[in-house]
Amino acid sequence: MTAERAIYLDNAATTRPLPEVVDAMATTALDCFGNPSSKHSFGPPARQRLEDAREFLRGTLGAAEIVFTSGGSEADYLGIVGAAAMRSSGRVLMAQSDHPAILECSSLLARWRHQVTRLPVTRTGGLDPETLFGALGRDVAVVALLHGHNELGTLLDLPALVELIRRAAPDAHIHVDLVQTYGKLPFDLDDADVDSVAVSGHKFHGPRGVGFLALSSKARIAPLQLAGGQEHGLRGGTENVPGAVGLMVAAEHAMTTLASTAQHTRTLADMVESAVLDEFPDAVRLGDPERRLPHIVSLRIPGVIGETLMLRCDRRGLAFSIGAACHGAHDDSKPQKVDNHVLAAIGLDRQAAREVFRISFARTTTTAEVRSAIDILVDEASALRDQAPRGNAADGARR
Amino acid sequence: MTAERAIYLDNAATTRPLPEVVDAMATTALDCFGNPSSKHSFGPPARQRLEDAREFLRGTLGAAEIVFTSGGSEADYLGIVGAAAMRSSGRVLMAQSDHPAILECSSLLARWRHQVTRLPVTRTGGLDPETLFGALGRDVAVVALLHGHNELGTLLDLPALVELIRRAAPDAHIHVDLVQTYGKLPFDLDDADVDSVAVSGHKFHGPRGVGFLALSSKARIAPLQLAGGQEHGLRGGTENVPGAVGLMVAAEHAMTTLASTAQHTRTLADMVESAVLDEFPDAVRLGDPERRLPHIVSLRIPGVIGETLMLRCDRRGLAFSIGAACHGAHDDSKPQKVDNHVLAAIGLDRQAAREVFRISFARTTTTAEVRSAIDILVDEASALRDQAPRGNAADGARR
Repeated sequence: MTAERAIYLDNAATTRPLPEVVDAMATTALDCFGNPSSKHSFGPPARQRLEDAREFLRGTLGAAEIVFTSGGSEADYLGIVGAAAMRSSGRVLMAQSDHPAILECSSLLARWRHQVTRLPVTRTGGLDPETLFGALGRDVAVVALLHGHNELGTLLDLPALVELIRRAAPDAHIHVDLVQTYGKLPFDLDDADVDSVAVSGHKFHGPRGVGFLALSSKARIAPLQLAGGQEHGLRGGTENVPGAVGLMVAAEHAMTTLASTAQHTRTLADMVESAVLDEFPDAVRLGDPERRLPHIVSLRIPGVIGETLMLRCDRRGLAFSIGAACHGAHDDSKPQKVDNHVLAAIGLDRQAAREVFRISFARTTTTAEVRSAIDILVDEASALRDQAPRGNAADGARR
Repeated sequence: MTAERAIYLDNAATTRPLPEVVDAMATTALDCFGNPSSKHSFGPPARQRLEDAREFLRGTLGAAEIVFTSGGSEADYLGIVGAAAMRSSGRVLMAQSDHPAILECSSLLARWRHQVTRLPVTRTGGLDPETLFGALGRDVAVVALLHGHNELGTLLDLPALVELIRRAAPDAHIHVDLVQTYGKLPFDLDDADVDSVAVSGHKFHGPRGVGFLALSSKARIAPLQLAGGQEHGLRGGTENVPGAVGLMVAAEHAMTTLASTAQHTRTLADMVESAVLDEFPDAVRLGDPERRLPHIVSLRIPGVIGETLMLRCDRRGLAFSIGAACHGAHDDSKPQKVDNHVLAAIGLDRQAAREVFRISFARTTTTAEVRSAIDILVDEASALRDQAPRGNAADGARR
């Protein structure tokens, strides 16, 4: 079965761009190719499109400023390291289960004499307010928060956490990774009382290689790449105007369908959860039942190795994941690690961690596709479980 | 006159992407949208296209490795700061007239306890071997060189400079900004004996927001943005597969037409030089007559303010520049500074600096376009010079 005919349920890893996004980018690239900084007549039309996109995206978050970046990872780096660079040495808080785009800021942060504290998380992947409170103090320069967890689907209780931070570390910069939530849940920087948020285009049917950092009016960040002083001196390099236009078109679609998409994908996620739990009563849905991203369902069927299940379903035209796509990117020759830092952080043992798989939806996912997916999934999981020896189902499925 | 009908002679600022590039990117974005790190069937086709592009680009430079970046500026940052981060504190050499993508690395370099030495340049924008030799020493960690100057069109005498560096600072990393020369002049990393080179897609009819750093087999650099460990751990973030494909298609075209494009654009540059010098015998072509980029002609007509000339020609449908597009990007409300750091570095006084303008060509530029451009340019420059009072032509044209 070719990829074209397959059912793609790995939308937390990446999404197919909307044809409207691709068309708008191609048109902009050809018809509006001038350098936005050029003073002759090729410059202003490009500048105008860039600023129109910036203004639209600014409005979607109630942000004071938008800094275009090469994606969500750069936006996290700029928000976290850029804010830390504006403050005297202190501590930067993040969670043990955070995305590598947050965690891997640590080596750069050391260059600005900041120390990183990685907070433990709950068994559902949440950040306990008491844990956070215990780590807070006036020496905290930056707190980085992952709004919606990419593997677990857990949403942080942002209002409670932000209130604590504002009380116990009033000068801290609060950066929020919005990569999995932008365009899926409403968000306003002022309402949330945070300083910066990171967004990635390819997670909401927008372009690859483009994202942005949105800033509140109070936010102060230092550039990491200054170059020609573009983006109000916060990020240098000739502006990617087609990319900015693509982001805008994708955001327009996401924002006008936000509520219905959340409803639709939540229904699909619940369909999968119900079907799996009906068939395998000992199966577990990971994450926090009270706080969930709508489009991600993370499951574990005891005795069924997630990777084996994923590969068997893939052969039948159903694509999903056993964790973040970026795990294992260091070295493709090694088998993908199931016992990743996220599952370790929520307290799963090695065997349980190997049983986890993640299914993620988009607004373009149809109910018919999910019905077919459930058939394939239950069928393959049942076959794998039947192969498992009695008394210790897990061993049988291991290879 | 609309931009579509105008004559675009500012190809050193940016170029129009080839339709083939835009088409290939759109097709890849829609048909091959999987995350290259995904282990299901949507991953490998995307990985394959990414690696095919990497392999092709590697071959164009005889490089050991290619690291995709968000453009030339990031490639310069990664090559210079990334190399410095792998070495103990020392000095980093660059030239006073270098592009801001090189010069502005200074603030980050300080974080790794490296000191920047900015070398003076000659009146033609070259780097005198004696000047370089005087600055070299065993404490030099990195030397950054701008192969072809974006404003002056001057080419460095790279073999002579590299030989000196290898002799007097054998452990130094040599980084070369190839942004204006890639696809225009042949280059091989091993032949040139350099460690890294930076390339930008949009300077050779490729995509915006994409570039790469090419590394020699001996090069050692540290990542600045690690994130998910992509690009062999040297640059994290979900890979921009359509961007990589666009780079490859643009590079294929550039490499197959390299010699004829150099010949064609050199002829066009000489046509403009001859026409201007015939009409204005006191006019001056900047840069080094012995070492020139083929596609850039930088001129000065005494008594004619470059900005005024540029704006008047633009109204007649001829677009060129008075310097790098990125100058003045900090604040668009300020008039573009003519007395920039490059012209100051080559010793021009304020008035002479204001008279400089730059015309730059692409292989798609036609001889007929350049003939029309010369008519407009000479006509407008003559009108401006006629307005200048006798005895002090310059003052009259000043506003």
